[in-house]
Amino acid sequence: MTKVIVSGFSISIDGYGAGPDQSLENPLGKGGETLHTWMIETNMFHTMLGKDGGSLGADDDYATRSMEGFGAFILGRNMFGPIRGDWPDDRWKGWWGDNPPYHAPTFILTQYPRDPIEMEGGTVFHFVTDGIAAALERARAAAGEQNVKIGGGVSTVRQYLQADLVDEIHLVISPVVLGRGEALFAGIDLSALGFAVTEHATTEAATHIVLAR
Amino acid sequence: MTKVIVSGFSISIDGYGAGPDQSLENPLGKGGETLHTWMIETNMFHTMLGKDGGSLGADDDYATRSMEGFGAFILGRNMFGPIRGDWPDDRWKGWWGDNPPYHAPTFILTQYPRDPIEMEGGTVFHFVTDGIAAALERARAAAGEQNVKIGGGVSTVRQYLQADLVDEIHLVISPVVLGRGEALFAGIDLSALGFAVTEHATTEAATHIVLAR
Repeated sequence: MTKVIVSGFSISIDGYGAGPDQSLENPLGKGGETLHTWMIETNMFHTMLGKDGGSLGADDDYATRSMEGFGAFILGRNMFGPIRGDWPDDRWKGWWGDNPPYHAPTFILTQYPRDPIEMEGGTVFHFVTDGIAAALERARAAAGEQNVKIGGGVSTVRQYLQADLVDEIHLVISPVVLGRGEALFAGIDLSALGFAVTEHATTEAATHIVLAR
Repeated sequence: MTKVIVSGFSISIDGYGAGPDQSLENPLGKGGETLHTWMIETNMFHTMLGKDGGSLGADDDYATRSMEGFGAFILGRNMFGPIRGDWPDDRWKGWWGDNPPYHAPTFILTQYPRDPIEMEGGTVFHFVTDGIAAALERARAAAGEQNVKIGGGVSTVRQYLQADLVDEIHLVISPVVLGRGEALFAGIDLSALGFAVTEHATTEAATHIVLAR
């Protein structure tokens, strides 16, 4: 049975999944990039960028797991790019260059229709304008036997949690403070949704928590 | 210079410092006691209860540090006891028996005046009815060269943070989910208050974070 999973999702110790004042210069908000230091330092991420080295151990294991075994991805539009409103043209194809790290059908939540984009390496971006449930239905169909990953950002994860559509969350608490930003769990009762901690691992760079139900 | 410190303060991964539905049976709210497993398992805590054994290492070091070097403590009334409203009599003397773990003047924030109580081991409970600033002034005077600890609970820590009166926070993130409860940092901008992470350590039982400015 296909599971719907949030994975490798980083928050600050004050609970923010992105910093304040998002912009083209700061797509993750001010200070938001510090949430992801644990992943940037891993061998998995180095390899993804065609570099040698990087940390091994739990951070690397979880980083690998956060991108493997998924038959489809769902992303909020702001995670796909900085453009708001209608698409001015077809030039923007995501933050990730010609060969994005998804290698599978990837469904972008947006109010504005656009034709699919086939990228190198197996990623095809589909633009879904009829809501999160429709996007999940299409992602499930595309994923076959594999799992579906809700890739983010914060608002997208919150919407799927609030709709009771998430089976598992791998959360990463980074040792940073953001002060303001997008609070991942504010007003969401994880216990009522049936989540409990099923795994945790700690490293110098982060605390990894798996929540399942 | 005396510092005002919050120390050994535990929160869940969803940011709660106490669970929902506090009562005499659940003084920390439902599930709240699971926040403190890291401390209960330490050698420091075992020793405090007159028992042998318990964990050593970072958990024990931080547990020890959370009670040492303080010349005075400040507690919210709910941390002192379950009684609300006026004191019916002088029988309630805290949760901790005849020899509380403070061993120093301990100022209880309350709306209801009461005479000080001298306990065994150096703890004297003083009841302060004129607000958090007055309590801190008295605690500073009592502490001399030593630091003042804001012992909790959540509401008391939040009031001192909001009044910009805290110098340092040792926060402990326990690998548990509470779902609802008292959110420690909701609406408090730690970055604007000047806090940054200055220390972090991870163990099987918890993630320790020190925030200072």
